[in-house]
Amino acid sequence: MARLLDELDLPKALKHLTLDQLQQVAGEIREEIIDTVSKTGGHLASNLGVVELALSIHTVLDSPKDKIIWDVGHQSYAHKILTGRLERFPSLRQYGGISGFPRTDESPHDVYNTGHASTSISAALGIAKARDLRREDYSVLAVIGDGSLTGGMAFEALNHAGQLGTDIIVILNDNEMSIARNVGGLASYLSRIRTEPHLLRVRQRLDQIIKGIPIIGEDVSESVRRFKGSLKYLVVPSMLFEDLGFTYLGPLDGHDMPLLIYTIQQAKAKGGPVLIHVVTKKGKGYSPAEEDPRAFHGVSGFRVPSGKILASNSHKSMSEAFGEALVAAAAKDPRIVAITAAMPDGTGLSPFMKKYPNRFFDVGIAEGHAVTMAGGLASQGFIPVVAIYSTFLQRSYDQIVHDIALQGLHVIFAVDRAGLVGEDGPTHHGNLDIAFLRSIPGMTVMAPIDEDELVAMLDFALDMKGPCALRYPRLCAADKEKKRECPPVEHGKGVLLEDGRDVAIIALGSMVYPSLDAAEILKTEGISAAVVNARFAKPVDEPLILEIAAKCKKVLVVEEASVVGGLASEVADILCKNVEWKVQFAGLGIPDDFVAHGPRDVLLAEYGLSPDGIAKAAMRLCKPKGHVKSSRDAVHQAKSAVEGVT
Amino acid sequence: MARLLDELDLPKALKHLTLDQLQQVAGEIREEIIDTVSKTGGHLASNLGVVELALSIHTVLDSPKDKIIWDVGHQSYAHKILTGRLERFPSLRQYGGISGFPRTDESPHDVYNTGHASTSISAALGIAKARDLRREDYSVLAVIGDGSLTGGMAFEALNHAGQLGTDIIVILNDNEMSIARNVGGLASYLSRIRTEPHLLRVRQRLDQIIKGIPIIGEDVSESVRRFKGSLKYLVVPSMLFEDLGFTYLGPLDGHDMPLLIYTIQQAKAKGGPVLIHVVTKKGKGYSPAEEDPRAFHGVSGFRVPSGKILASNSHKSMSEAFGEALVAAAAKDPRIVAITAAMPDGTGLSPFMKKYPNRFFDVGIAEGHAVTMAGGLASQGFIPVVAIYSTFLQRSYDQIVHDIALQGLHVIFAVDRAGLVGEDGPTHHGNLDIAFLRSIPGMTVMAPIDEDELVAMLDFALDMKGPCALRYPRLCAADKEKKRECPPVEHGKGVLLEDGRDVAIIALGSMVYPSLDAAEILKTEGISAAVVNARFAKPVDEPLILEIAAKCKKVLVVEEASVVGGLASEVADILCKNVEWKVQFAGLGIPDDFVAHGPRDVLLAEYGLSPDGIAKAAMRLCKPKGHVKSSRDAVHQAKSAVEGVT
Repeated sequence: MARLLDELDLPKALKHLTLDQLQQVAGEIREEIIDTVSKTGGHLASNLGVVELALSIHTVLDSPKDKIIWDVGHQSYAHKILTGRLERFPSLRQYGGISGFPRTDESPHDVYNTGHASTSISAALGIAKARDLRREDYSVLAVIGDGSLTGGMAFEALNHAGQLGTDIIVILNDNEMSIARNVGGLASYLSRIRTEPHLLRVRQRLDQIIKGIPIIGEDVSESVRRFKGSLKYLVVPSMLFEDLGFTYLGPLDGHDMPLLIYTIQQAKAKGGPVLIHVVTKKGKGYSPAEEDPRAFHGVSGFRVPSGKILASNSHKSMSEAFGEALVAAAAKDPRIVAITAAMPDGTGLSPFMKKYPNRFFDVGIAEGHAVTMAGGLASQGFIPVVAIYSTFLQRSYDQIVHDIALQGLHVIFAVDRAGLVGEDGPTHHGNLDIAFLRSIPGMTVMAPIDEDELVAMLDFALDMKGPCALRYPRLCAADKEKKRECPPVEHGKGVLLEDGRDVAIIALGSMVYPSLDAAEILKTEGISAAVVNARFAKPVDEPLILEIAAKCKKVLVVEEASVVGGLASEVADILCKNVEWKVQFAGLGIPDDFVAHGPRDVLLAEYGLSPDGIAKAAMRLCKPKGHVKSSRDAVHQAKSAVEGVT
Repeated sequence: MARLLDELDLPKALKHLTLDQLQQVAGEIREEIIDTVSKTGGHLASNLGVVELALSIHTVLDSPKDKIIWDVGHQSYAHKILTGRLERFPSLRQYGGISGFPRTDESPHDVYNTGHASTSISAALGIAKARDLRREDYSVLAVIGDGSLTGGMAFEALNHAGQLGTDIIVILNDNEMSIARNVGGLASYLSRIRTEPHLLRVRQRLDQIIKGIPIIGEDVSESVRRFKGSLKYLVVPSMLFEDLGFTYLGPLDGHDMPLLIYTIQQAKAKGGPVLIHVVTKKGKGYSPAEEDPRAFHGVSGFRVPSGKILASNSHKSMSEAFGEALVAAAAKDPRIVAITAAMPDGTGLSPFMKKYPNRFFDVGIAEGHAVTMAGGLASQGFIPVVAIYSTFLQRSYDQIVHDIALQGLHVIFAVDRAGLVGEDGPTHHGNLDIAFLRSIPGMTVMAPIDEDELVAMLDFALDMKGPCALRYPRLCAADKEKKRECPPVEHGKGVLLEDGRDVAIIALGSMVYPSLDAAEILKTEGISAAVVNARFAKPVDEPLILEIAAKCKKVLVVEEASVVGGLASEVADILCKNVEWKVQFAGLGIPDDFVAHGPRDVLLAEYGLSPDGIAKAAMRLCKPKGHVKSSRDAVHQAKSAVEGVT
């Protein structure tokens, strides 16, 4: 049977469907999502949870005239399928394929890029004010999860929207979890609302009762008026959102399309800031995901009937190695505590959480608070280890500067998913951490080459004073037979792994093993390459770099980080200031641009961050160049000699 | 008459004072604050508003065993006077004197450094959990203003504290304004609470009425139980804080010491997270400040009896020039809108606010939201100009990356108070902006040398595409007779202001005029210095730099910004990668450390960022050096030749 999905002119046609047809479309979307994600990997549970919601929104609204913004955006698959991307859907998250997140450059129906949590209401409010200023007439709707709502900027935006009073619809998609189970007073508030639906039924009868209340004196009559108005407090325990200036509608069953459609229409008609509280089930319609939504939050691939998840890699992940090492360290030192922002699984902290629940803090999606709370703990002599993905740590830049480094507090940052993350793409790549962490006075920044060095660096960090970051990707693929010994970590000291005379490759973290492989390639070309494991991006091992530069006269810095403000820029600075002779220099890293989504190894290879690419960059550096005259032309000539290397 | 302040053993003695004596101490503290701030400048209105609050807190609590954290911290003067800093108080904000903010290195009574808003609850929660883990017994109290409460991380912390349930007291110091008048749904919520004190009186009588309500059926009886419990909703309009898990006490008159003392004691006894809502009057006790608290928020100096504020400088500020230029531009282009985070006055946007109230958005202390809302506006074709101080823009680093630059949105950042701000000290210096803004792909970063160039750069930025930042200090002191012409701004192009042959000084923004003066000094030493106005920190004018480097062979980069990741590091990178001959190079900027408080010119001179200092650095570079051997010793020798220059 042909699918409605293939036949209909979507999203327009939705307005004319019967409920049965809408339900059929919902089923088809679910199948499409399950089928695709089982092969491509991606976010499954959250997408299955919002199929009816996406259908209902597109039934009422008129996208792209009306603007729909998906907070975080990893739940936008149904939206994508409904807005012209059915055919390309199998290319989801693939290199050159469609993104797993809304992208304005992918469709006019994606009105704002999302990826990080809690941004949607701010963006929606900006769009709504743009509409008002132009006196245009369209709806602006943001869909935000209860997890994202714990992020402070969502509150900042609710607070501001409540004051501005402009037409904006916020759908709170309440599935009782962010990625792990939700935390915070807000979560228990929402749960109180959810669990008291019987209150709705008694509302009318109470109305009758109220009418019988006697009125005594002036003061009281005013109070009774309020009292009657305050009936709403009986229907739901309280009106947090109304306090902020929103009309609150809910809670609704988020899979009941007639109710959803009716309520979104109501919200449109009502005007002003309206919050619709919708309760959905993560993984809805696919029982393995319903039963374990956490496992199916972000998944690499699975078998459809059984729900058996396919392991993406047999290597132990850096995250796991970190988590295990921290548990071991915590057994010896009661001062160690761990903090995560809604990522106990992804950061490897789950074993710590289980073993030391009192010393473990999941603060919700609240990176700023996570860091400053760590500061509070550190100020009293504890040693907090804050595990946050590189891209999300950007959220706490100011807190690291102002609440940690300024006081020289001993807080350790476990910066996971550093460098290119692969399929999640540009909103999630963690290539700025070296630059922004290096800018912070007193900060130590390390990058391990493998699990062993990660453990050694963590132990070193725990023994240090002051703020310290370890940055690493989820996986560091070191073949067992090539694995290097891990000499003791010394502050600001690198390790010369291979001596050489023609070119010095100074590599950081994940780029060290590929650089060793590059040296092998170079050997076959008759080039003797030294390879340095820099270990520290701050402070950099200046004496070692100057020594090896003096020997080789050619220096190539390789890092899985932005070339702006990265290790290369520090090495350039050191060479420029300290040596009297000319050193041939190049930096190889992630260019000063946003990097697309795709498999991590493909992306790395594209930027030359592979054994081959590194060897080529070293060879370019070793090519003899003519004398360069001091004119602009000559400079351009010199530049083109190192073409392709930033 | 001798003051009690001088005689008492504070803060301990407070516990034994009569109310009359406490009031006398309050008066003495007010006098001390008014007297000192009239000379030193500082935050007046907010400090006068919390004298009774500080006294009451120190009467109940036992600092430093009990921990008191002042959010923002600029209202901590009474606390400082009460905790051993009376004698040093006249040195407030002076170079080498006591800080205008809590500093852990200044007193054990300052348990956590503050400066930026909204951090106190997070820090307090960390300290409270440290106490719990050690099974210690003390109180942790945070004082936070209603303005700071609009910052998202305060909400993140409230949310988390509500869940953890540990003992923590948050005093909400509600003075109805942050710096300017407060904004947001929360503000109007607080105002509803404040303005309905009569509700308290009717509570008991209503209790009687309720008892007469009939009970009909099972469903209803449960509801009536709740209904009775919900009486609190009659007393205050709602219970936002209780929804988050806090016990709410208030609102109280924040100048009524017996009531404050009683309530803080109650909060201690109650346990768990307690929020005390206190209403204070900014400027209390000094009528000029009571009447115009905005003018007396941060003040440079004033005459005590009259309240006449002494102008600190006759120069037009960069902020004013920016504000005026933006008003002029907005008259021509209806797409221009302006956004501030609670700083309409400080950023120079007040005239814009008055002239174009519909196109002006004060989002409250909410820098993250400010930026992403700007993104929403930009996505619809508006041109948002976001004016935020450099130090506070650190709060929106992720939003600039993720919500602006990733989509290439045309948002202009007016980064005021860039570089060293002077008396506010390390929490407020804005020396990291070049580093963190340069790290962002697609970002343009400019720095004007004076008001004329600021206006030209603003106009240029308005005509550009993509994100763009202008960074400047509040004042750029260019003597009228030395003032340079302002040639048209071209993207990524610097200006050669003075040609020379011995050394090239490449200066950024505020350092250009001092570099011109340095060139004059160098002339008297027989050194011919070229001076380049770099204009752009990103993209840097590579051809011009290479040309002048080729000519002079010696390059000194001067910037009022951190040496890590600053313009100097970019110039070093360019030189390292593109020239075949050795260039003598040095960078002069703010060292990789936190800078103390003190007059801006004193601090700048200390780091050599003065005509004299720049000339000296250039001379060091011009000194002939011996040949350097390629050994570590030789390198050290080379380094010491540029000693003092980072």
